[in-house]
Amino acid sequence: MNRPTAEIIAIGSELLTPTKTDTNSLWLTERLNEVGIEVKLKTVVGDDPERLEEAVRDALKRADVIITTGGLGPTEDDVTRKIVARSVGLELEFRQDLEDGIRARFKSFGREMPEINRRQAYIVKGAEALANSNGTAPGMLVSTDGRLLVVLPGPPRELKPMFSDHVIPVLAASGSGVVFRKRVLKVSGLGESAIDEAIAPIYKTFQDITTGILFNKSEVEVHLTAQASTGDAADARNDELVKLVVAKLGDAVFSTEGEEMESVVGRLLRERGETLAVAESCTGGLIGSRITEVAGSSEYFLEGVVTYANSAKVRMLGVDEGLIAKHGAVSQEVAEAMAAGMLSSSGADYAVSVTGIAGPGGGSEEKPVGTVFVGYADIESVRSTRLQLPGDRYLIRWRASQAALDILRRQILRRSR
Amino acid sequence: MNRPTAEIIAIGSELLTPTKTDTNSLWLTERLNEVGIEVKLKTVVGDDPERLEEAVRDALKRADVIITTGGLGPTEDDVTRKIVARSVGLELEFRQDLEDGIRARFKSFGREMPEINRRQAYIVKGAEALANSNGTAPGMLVSTDGRLLVVLPGPPRELKPMFSDHVIPVLAASGSGVVFRKRVLKVSGLGESAIDEAIAPIYKTFQDITTGILFNKSEVEVHLTAQASTGDAADARNDELVKLVVAKLGDAVFSTEGEEMESVVGRLLRERGETLAVAESCTGGLIGSRITEVAGSSEYFLEGVVTYANSAKVRMLGVDEGLIAKHGAVSQEVAEAMAAGMLSSSGADYAVSVTGIAGPGGGSEEKPVGTVFVGYADIESVRSTRLQLPGDRYLIRWRASQAALDILRRQILRRSR
Repeated sequence: MNRPTAEIIAIGSELLTPTKTDTNSLWLTERLNEVGIEVKLKTVVGDDPERLEEAVRDALKRADVIITTGGLGPTEDDVTRKIVARSVGLELEFRQDLEDGIRARFKSFGREMPEINRRQAYIVKGAEALANSNGTAPGMLVSTDGRLLVVLPGPPRELKPMFSDHVIPVLAASGSGVVFRKRVLKVSGLGESAIDEAIAPIYKTFQDITTGILFNKSEVEVHLTAQASTGDAADARNDELVKLVVAKLGDAVFSTEGEEMESVVGRLLRERGETLAVAESCTGGLIGSRITEVAGSSEYFLEGVVTYANSAKVRMLGVDEGLIAKHGAVSQEVAEAMAAGMLSSSGADYAVSVTGIAGPGGGSEEKPVGTVFVGYADIESVRSTRLQLPGDRYLIRWRASQAALDILRRQILRRSR
Repeated sequence: MNRPTAEIIAIGSELLTPTKTDTNSLWLTERLNEVGIEVKLKTVVGDDPERLEEAVRDALKRADVIITTGGLGPTEDDVTRKIVARSVGLELEFRQDLEDGIRARFKSFGREMPEINRRQAYIVKGAEALANSNGTAPGMLVSTDGRLLVVLPGPPRELKPMFSDHVIPVLAASGSGVVFRKRVLKVSGLGESAIDEAIAPIYKTFQDITTGILFNKSEVEVHLTAQASTGDAADARNDELVKLVVAKLGDAVFSTEGEEMESVVGRLLRERGETLAVAESCTGGLIGSRITEVAGSSEYFLEGVVTYANSAKVRMLGVDEGLIAKHGAVSQEVAEAMAAGMLSSSGADYAVSVTGIAGPGGGSEEKPVGTVFVGYADIESVRSTRLQLPGDRYLIRWRASQAALDILRRQILRRSR
């Protein structure tokens, strides 16, 4: 069975400037994939009648579903209505009921409808008008020659409910009968190819699930997309595969629901009623910032220090000056002393620390840029891990924060076994 | 005079998924605009020979410059080389010099070239090969029928130097003779419309400069694009307008070169040989993280604390428990005590503090979500500012960090007058 195909045409001259990008198509692609429709091509075109007409005509030759976004505003340069009509060889017709609706919308804000908005009451003859719950421009569904042409407004808060409420049901009903469901597992501490080698023998036995492995800053994502005749059946198949992958990879899988590392760590701490403090040097507050980005983090996060200067490490964390002089501020000994000092001054159940060289300067032969020590302390033990992180300053800092959170996560799990 | 036009075709099936977007075209658009070329259409197509050929052929009918990105890898599904050749009716030819270059690149990493990479030594017959300083795949420049077809690899760190070094000079030489230069001013503490009202009478007298005003999280950007016959002349015109805008808006303009707030603050501190410490509550380390994102920040940033729990505010910053009991942790009094405590314990020249309610929970009638106090201390004075910030948790935290940095910036400027 051939999967139905779609093309998306984003309309608007602002989308051809260096600062604006079309993001509607990403959301639309996800919705289309869920009902089994594959996006084969995307076009971005300006408020440019000739090129737009060519883009719509070309898409109508190739795809089953053609979606346009944008260009439905009330002004002269909003050409979508006119050009879509021309592309399918039909006229625009004025619809009094649509004008009444637009007028009522303005009235609900205590305003009169400007004359110019009357333009939005025109739609392609015979098309189905799609109600816009968050704006004045109605959308359109045009069936032509076995193709479905869907015309949507550009603003995401208008486009999304319109598409979900009025277009998805039509596509699902006329579709291939196949439903797709996506699931994202996140894995730390293992490379892409090691993961693939371990789990390929498993996922290859699930012919109804497409598996993709993606590297993302310092975690690997395993994307599963199951297809089945219902959403529940597809979810159940994903569940089965997830269970086998987790059994194989163990604690390296930190989320089976696509969560961020800081959310996972927060959940573990909250479940156990335990608390955390952090001592940062090269990450400069990034770990604290990530942890507190999660709403409700005050339940388990007590405090942090950013000891950038050596004097701060000594005064705030009680790190021995002699230790810094002997081993350097970037060392296993100092990382452990930072974590231990943080644990004891805060009274938290866990403390993690980071000291390292984020670059671009400051590296040496023995400790090149990217050398990072993560310290860990709980009531029973103090330990540390040396890492050699690749990337620029931004990536090294981000990866160091991720490693610290991951080490904490694994220790929490180990202690509660 | 007609401006030359360009179309960009991004190639790769991953760009048709819900999670990946083509960002190369934004960078390319900026570079093209600078040499007077306008982007009229963008296409995203998968590793799909038929659709790709159609896209290239259509673009060749309409645009003066056609740029493809991606699909130059060594594997079977990298079809760009083959399809580009077919689209212009030419053969691929093997180039020994290109293979030698690829082989040498592998050797420099101590590896043998895999046989599969030989594919990358084929280019369209008669095309100019473009050297790749960061990867194995050479690019191509194909002149065909008065059009210029530019074939670039997908990874940004390969594409960008290749385009800047080898393509821009060709385009600039054959271009329209008009050069565009962009300049970004960043403004804090004033809204878009207040800024526009103040500076529209100025920028409207510069007919050769296009001015755009853009709101971005908690700063307003003023984008100037001057056109002239040379880059220097365009730069000079931008300079003139910048001078007048700064004279009008004063300290509200925090950068005339598009810098981030943390870079501007860092430069001011470094120039003065002064130091900084920060005490954070609701921002959780975000201010420290932003400051230390700047390379070389250890010159002026000494330390920070994240006092999330009240007990930490008392112990680490010496905030009076009675003050917290009487006014609440989110109050002017506590913000000032945090800054004063941080200044005295760190010995820094400046301390800033933030305490607030980032939400979604924790708000009250008197202090709703978004209530933030920024404290400031130097050797001469301690002060604070109450803010009511709009947005969700992420935006409130970001805006609080921005406000703290901006208050610091203005105080540094005031003190050195």
